[in-house]
Amino acid sequence: MKNEVSNGSSIPVNYEDRAAIEAFLAKNSGQPVVAVQGLGFVGAVMALVCANAIGNKYAVLGVDLLRPATYSRVKLLNEGTFPLVADDPLIDIYYQNALRQGNLHATCDPVAYQYANVVVVDINLDVNKQSDGKSELSGFDVDLTPFKAAMKTLGENCREDVLILVETTVPPGTCQKVVKPILDEEFKKRGLNPGKYKLGHSYERVMPGPQYIHSIQSYPRVYSGIDERSADAVESFLKTIIDTSQCELTRLGSTNATEMAKVLENSYRAMNISFVIEWTQFAEEAGVNLYEIVKAIRVRNTHANLMLPGIGVGGYCLTKDPLLASWSRTTMFNGAGMLDMSVKAVTQNDKMPVYAFRRLKFLVDGLSGKRVAILGVSYRGDVGDTRFSPVEPFVKQLESDGAATICHDPYVDEWPELNRTVQQDLAEVLSASPDMLVICAGHKLYSMDSTIDQINAVPQRLFIFDTIGLLSQQHVNKLATRHQVKVLGRGDI
Amino acid sequence: MKNEVSNGSSIPVNYEDRAAIEAFLAKNSGQPVVAVQGLGFVGAVMALVCANAIGNKYAVLGVDLLRPATYSRVKLLNEGTFPLVADDPLIDIYYQNALRQGNLHATCDPVAYQYANVVVVDINLDVNKQSDGKSELSGFDVDLTPFKAAMKTLGENCREDVLILVETTVPPGTCQKVVKPILDEEFKKRGLNPGKYKLGHSYERVMPGPQYIHSIQSYPRVYSGIDERSADAVESFLKTIIDTSQCELTRLGSTNATEMAKVLENSYRAMNISFVIEWTQFAEEAGVNLYEIVKAIRVRNTHANLMLPGIGVGGYCLTKDPLLASWSRTTMFNGAGMLDMSVKAVTQNDKMPVYAFRRLKFLVDGLSGKRVAILGVSYRGDVGDTRFSPVEPFVKQLESDGAATICHDPYVDEWPELNRTVQQDLAEVLSASPDMLVICAGHKLYSMDSTIDQINAVPQRLFIFDTIGLLSQQHVNKLATRHQVKVLGRGDI
Repeated sequence: MKNEVSNGSSIPVNYEDRAAIEAFLAKNSGQPVVAVQGLGFVGAVMALVCANAIGNKYAVLGVDLLRPATYSRVKLLNEGTFPLVADDPLIDIYYQNALRQGNLHATCDPVAYQYANVVVVDINLDVNKQSDGKSELSGFDVDLTPFKAAMKTLGENCREDVLILVETTVPPGTCQKVVKPILDEEFKKRGLNPGKYKLGHSYERVMPGPQYIHSIQSYPRVYSGIDERSADAVESFLKTIIDTSQCELTRLGSTNATEMAKVLENSYRAMNISFVIEWTQFAEEAGVNLYEIVKAIRVRNTHANLMLPGIGVGGYCLTKDPLLASWSRTTMFNGAGMLDMSVKAVTQNDKMPVYAFRRLKFLVDGLSGKRVAILGVSYRGDVGDTRFSPVEPFVKQLESDGAATICHDPYVDEWPELNRTVQQDLAEVLSASPDMLVICAGHKLYSMDSTIDQINAVPQRLFIFDTIGLLSQQHVNKLATRHQVKVLGRGDI
Repeated sequence: MKNEVSNGSSIPVNYEDRAAIEAFLAKNSGQPVVAVQGLGFVGAVMALVCANAIGNKYAVLGVDLLRPATYSRVKLLNEGTFPLVADDPLIDIYYQNALRQGNLHATCDPVAYQYANVVVVDINLDVNKQSDGKSELSGFDVDLTPFKAAMKTLGENCREDVLILVETTVPPGTCQKVVKPILDEEFKKRGLNPGKYKLGHSYERVMPGPQYIHSIQSYPRVYSGIDERSADAVESFLKTIIDTSQCELTRLGSTNATEMAKVLENSYRAMNISFVIEWTQFAEEAGVNLYEIVKAIRVRNTHANLMLPGIGVGGYCLTKDPLLASWSRTTMFNGAGMLDMSVKAVTQNDKMPVYAFRRLKFLVDGLSGKRVAILGVSYRGDVGDTRFSPVEPFVKQLESDGAATICHDPYVDEWPELNRTVQQDLAEVLSASPDMLVICAGHKLYSMDSTIDQINAVPQRLFIFDTIGLLSQQHVNKLATRHQVKVLGRGDI
């Protein structure tokens, strides 16, 4: 977990937390118990939202695995430090409130599930992408083993009448064809009635950033259950969590349907991004400004989702969900083929950082020995999230071409994927005598007048490359009085 | 031209119209002259809009080629019959007004261009698609010969200070790399100054149907010129034609940019349609209702352009514009490659009728000897436009599989592409003892309660296949009491 507060804990040898859990539940006696499985980018915040539920008071158990990184989160959570740095001030308000109320306890002991009326599943389900190292996708695979193990743990421990709500983005078919058989099997072993548990699916649309809490609590949701009874239970639970005065809850016909909705939703977005990639190249070839074209077209409601050019797609979802979907189609449903367009979208998106690199190389006539300042390493503006950031392959390409990079990001001090420190002081970066600045993330800082002045005060003539069209025409003009400025997708300058 | 009023004229041997043109202009003396080149689906209506211009009074010359079909249009226009049947009542109002004012004259004599202050180019520019006969695209080519000939005619005849406004959807680069050199060459031959003409590009967003006039007159536009002077002239002209109180005019940096905007716009739409095709198949395989999924996702503004399943894409634009764009990239700009995603979108879309056919065949277990009533042959709801309708390959497939078809469409009586009569009376179609009804176009008629009752009154049990999700769940339920109902993209029924 990036942006994680680390306390360097190692795992205790004989971890056992039943006593602490029981003491916690005794203090919160009479309150229904919600266990959140997985305390990552979704689960940690979902636990806060449950501990601050609108429609009920819950005793919330955050549960994660007994491994160094996850144990560290659990420990921090219990010791008064939220393990995630985020821009949303509500995060701290909700966390402090939970501490005050004493209704949030984190643990690595799966015994926690024995007490839970509701288990919310927020664990990862990853796609293994095979690439050529330059982010060209050559194949991919989905390994359900860790997910299945997590479901087995639930089946071994959960209450007979539990509601299990899967929020993880899963290949369509997973609740019916994977989760249910595992639970049924474990219930049989335990002599419990598999007709008693309730199983549903409802995906979050979490957006790390300043609206983090809001993106869970006040955002429309679809939900479903493996049967009517389960769907009713999911609905009742979500109504206590989600602010339905702000947003709609929509029941779909089956867990297959909601699972498909999530991956379709993200595939659509990945597709829209991939679409504009080849037009970016065309615009450069034809000497036109693609940004003004896209802006002019977007006035039509039917074309409002048209995307702008950029360095590529990052984050945990868009880079893999179309693959999850395609994998499900061929593997779980014996489908007639892959989801070609959706898979191709990922392939195209993965190529974009390489293209941005090539474009830069073409424009500057060689990169060897050049000092390149990278402005922004996160995959999203004003968010410190480097997971699958397109800036990563871009920087790797620069370096393998002999350039020296110095990275800046106001929201990131450590870049875990590249295991390096990121500068947070722009003045320091500018004083390190770079030859080039490459704007890679849409942080507000880089489009402020004061920043433009700061860049214009650099004594040497810089080559400035804006890979995301962040600079206004006015800023381009101002910078161009002192430096050379190029923008990805603008063949006109 | 479909939906054309035909008067069976043959071409006169020695056609010469100068005298009539001069008499017409004498009657409209003092008025600036606008010539519209091409009187097809766009040009005929553009001529009406110019004759009813908001900001000026123009003498309008509609010009088309001396060929049977186009001469017929010219003759009808002059004899008091608008050559196009359309749903928009404004068409007749504008036409009658032009007749009353006497400021619209149609001609096949290119001499007309000698009098025009403004020439609006509304001719076709077609893509030659090679397919396997089952609408699988195997290749394509663009032949600019007819377009170039039309530009040569303008260059040979136009005034030295003419404004030529190209509205045709052209491969990006056409104004600069094709039109301008031709005009320059002809001006040189004529001893005129090529620096005097003005050349611009502004694409229409015409939508045949009830908003036909509105889609020209009150819809936002981008425009450009090959130089500042030309762009200014285009702007001045458009301001007299377009209702800028209702919609914006946006100047882009070059004719390359506006030309690209048009094909990008249509490629985006083609792409969005193609995206949902593979999900349609997946939804059927997974037993879910794709319509409810799309509806649930569309609540997000970022996903509002997500399309619904359907039988495929038709019409003159979306079926070819991505190919025009890709052709331009490789041919006109020496681009690094094709526009792969955009070309693939067309390929996918072209396969959709085949898929709908296969799905039907799978559902009914063979089609040989079956009597299939096709409800709707147009490519769009409530419009009688069969150009490149996806229903065409669908019907051909049915027939090559041994089914007998009877076609119904309230807006089409003749289907020119298949050279056959289309029924306009649904009762007659239902009384012809069909085995199946296939809904292929979104005409309101097919979703009216009375139509559902009419279908339920048929004595035999029908197989009803809705290829576009037109039927409401209520109508599906009602029909299912008497018939078997299936919907494309709904694996749940």
